[in-house]
Amino acid sequence: MIGQAGGPTAVFNQSLVGVVETCTADARVGRVLGALHGIAGILDARFVDLSREKRRTLEAVARTPGAALRSVRHKPTLEECERIVEAFRAHDVRWFFYLGGNDSAETMELIARAARALDVDVRLFHVPKTVDNDLAGSDHCPGYPSAARFVALAARGQDLDLRSLPGVQILVIMGRHAGWLTAASALARTRDGDGPHLVYVPERAFTHQAFIGGVERSLARHGRCLVALSEGAHLPDGRLVIESAEKDSHGNVQLSGSGALGDYLAEYVKVTLGRKLRVRADTLGYVQRSFPGCVSPVDVREAREVGRFAARAALDGEADAGSVAIQREPGRTYAARYVVLALSDVAHKTRTLEEHYLEGDDDVTPAFNAWLRPLAGALPRPGHLAEYTFGAPRPGSLYPVRR
Amino acid sequence: MIGQAGGPTAVFNQSLVGVVETCTADARVGRVLGALHGIAGILDARFVDLSREKRRTLEAVARTPGAALRSVRHKPTLEECERIVEAFRAHDVRWFFYLGGNDSAETMELIARAARALDVDVRLFHVPKTVDNDLAGSDHCPGYPSAARFVALAARGQDLDLRSLPGVQILVIMGRHAGWLTAASALARTRDGDGPHLVYVPERAFTHQAFIGGVERSLARHGRCLVALSEGAHLPDGRLVIESAEKDSHGNVQLSGSGALGDYLAEYVKVTLGRKLRVRADTLGYVQRSFPGCVSPVDVREAREVGRFAARAALDGEADAGSVAIQREPGRTYAARYVVLALSDVAHKTRTLEEHYLEGDDDVTPAFNAWLRPLAGALPRPGHLAEYTFGAPRPGSLYPVRR
Repeated sequence: MIGQAGGPTAVFNQSLVGVVETCTADARVGRVLGALHGIAGILDARFVDLSREKRRTLEAVARTPGAALRSVRHKPTLEECERIVEAFRAHDVRWFFYLGGNDSAETMELIARAARALDVDVRLFHVPKTVDNDLAGSDHCPGYPSAARFVALAARGQDLDLRSLPGVQILVIMGRHAGWLTAASALARTRDGDGPHLVYVPERAFTHQAFIGGVERSLARHGRCLVALSEGAHLPDGRLVIESAEKDSHGNVQLSGSGALGDYLAEYVKVTLGRKLRVRADTLGYVQRSFPGCVSPVDVREAREVGRFAARAALDGEADAGSVAIQREPGRTYAARYVVLALSDVAHKTRTLEEHYLEGDDDVTPAFNAWLRPLAGALPRPGHLAEYTFGAPRPGSLYPVRR
Repeated sequence: MIGQAGGPTAVFNQSLVGVVETCTADARVGRVLGALHGIAGILDARFVDLSREKRRTLEAVARTPGAALRSVRHKPTLEECERIVEAFRAHDVRWFFYLGGNDSAETMELIARAARALDVDVRLFHVPKTVDNDLAGSDHCPGYPSAARFVALAARGQDLDLRSLPGVQILVIMGRHAGWLTAASALARTRDGDGPHLVYVPERAFTHQAFIGGVERSLARHGRCLVALSEGAHLPDGRLVIESAEKDSHGNVQLSGSGALGDYLAEYVKVTLGRKLRVRADTLGYVQRSFPGCVSPVDVREAREVGRFAARAALDGEADAGSVAIQREPGRTYAARYVVLALSDVAHKTRTLEEHYLEGDDDVTPAFNAWLRPLAGALPRPGHLAEYTFGAPRPGSLYPVRR
């Protein structure tokens, strides 16, 4: 039996198909069942028979963003865990694969406990997935490289747009507790002066004063300022930046609105630096995890492989339960290996950006870019005019041009 | 001399390079000058010599989003028009190309008037560009097909995401006066029941009552509702939807914030249909006009060609001034032709969605999709599981599954 959980990604279904194809090819597996909406489908007895799906359908599904089995956000109660395990017994489920993030690993821990208590023999494997890239024990998580590629390309486009029509642009990026996706915006840069010029992640405290100082410096140096900001950016006292709006005279902000953080900071810049400054805010929403046609080739390959690896580990391995993780082989050429971790090594844990990936309070290090580059895949290289000057410009122009 | 104006696009520089390559190849042209930031660069005497740029550089620039010469939003005064024309005289500028939307066509009209008054012999050609697709006399405008492709793919991804985790998703799309870009979201659909389920464009009045009715119907039928909404959506009395928030008890909204419209409507749905409903809003910001790596092949080709055609028309044609337009050849196979219109046919005009492209108040017709399909290019085809049911589901589930 297989279920998908949590926020979908552009390559989530690659992992699903990886599990399905490996299990259907194994003579010991009579039938491969999919639970619709994850554990909710098990509780509701809403199953589909994945072993009857055509090879061509599965390949088309693998290339499609979202969760083909539909997803769920639900932490099961003890009683629900028992019902889930009873469903395993009723349908003779010998292997259960749950595809998701650290919440799903936790769900698997709870189910494993119930299975032991009820003496039901089922192998339980968590297959990693999260654009947040925050699973402990992994080099990176399937879904993240494609989302990172989208964020880097979006930041590239925004910086080119801002170079055309100068001002300040704030780009709010997913990541409540970890800045991996926001940090990916730095991969947009190819030359000195390219944006993002300020990168704020939850691993560092945000202060309004340093932010305004950074914006002013970037405007003076580059004539523009592209800000990449995690939705989880917070103040030194731990409150989210958006919460500071409440005590602020700069306008009323709905805390629940998804565009609120960007709008609040854009207004803050205008109030502080002057209404004449062009300031814009864009919140990259669900498009960053679901956009079709911009996936990372490495991500496609690895998302499929974690599914296959999990199935092989469950069918042939030693462990009764575990969580699959991608780790990186040492060496200059990128290569991944797959390992099985204990569920407890992944559940309840959040992996944040490591110290050596962070530069000061508002940037990432070259080591971060080097780490990310093979994952995101080759980005189109932007071209710039050499700009051979003709004549002497008049002083005091409408747009002071910095080269 | 060449300048770029208005909001950049993903293929704006294709048109720039089309003009440059055609002019540099002509023996009558001594030098090809670029004005930085459009007419602002002419007023400030900030020029670059484009004829010295390497072929390889120009090709790399053509593939890069944004405005390589930087852009401007400025309507020149009479005095500024005279200074611009005097600059043409001083530098012996015989041909001036201005790449932009209808504001740029209007600027060219004003400059043409000043040139006649000052008896300066210069040919003035407007080269079309706008993701809004609102230029009169055109079948479509360069920049629009790529932005439309982005919007269609974004809507596809969002609908797949929403199918995984059901609820209501509001997608706010560019277009203050014309709904071309919002309408493009309909191209995301491949099956009955696919989103967007409601499409609101400025050509039709939006009412809160019909909106809520539409959301409820879609939730009942499909278990989800994806709403595509133009930023310029307005009420029957002509006020913008976002302005209705002022008189509303559903929360305070900053009118200036870019995420405000989506956030306001999401809150409105929650207040009206209940807090338990999952409601999200994403505002597709500048990423829809600047995203690299998702351009339409037809757009790339045509954006280059309008630049070349404008240059040939200016160098060899009859007209002293004009605006280039793309028109569609009749017939089943897509083909474009290029024509020169009078500046006055394009300036001060806005082309909105035609009646036969609109279905009721909240959808587009199949004719619209047929019109758009060759422009946006082939979209990846999503795959769906056949979903062979296994067993009988329990009634009253957490997620009622609709197939």
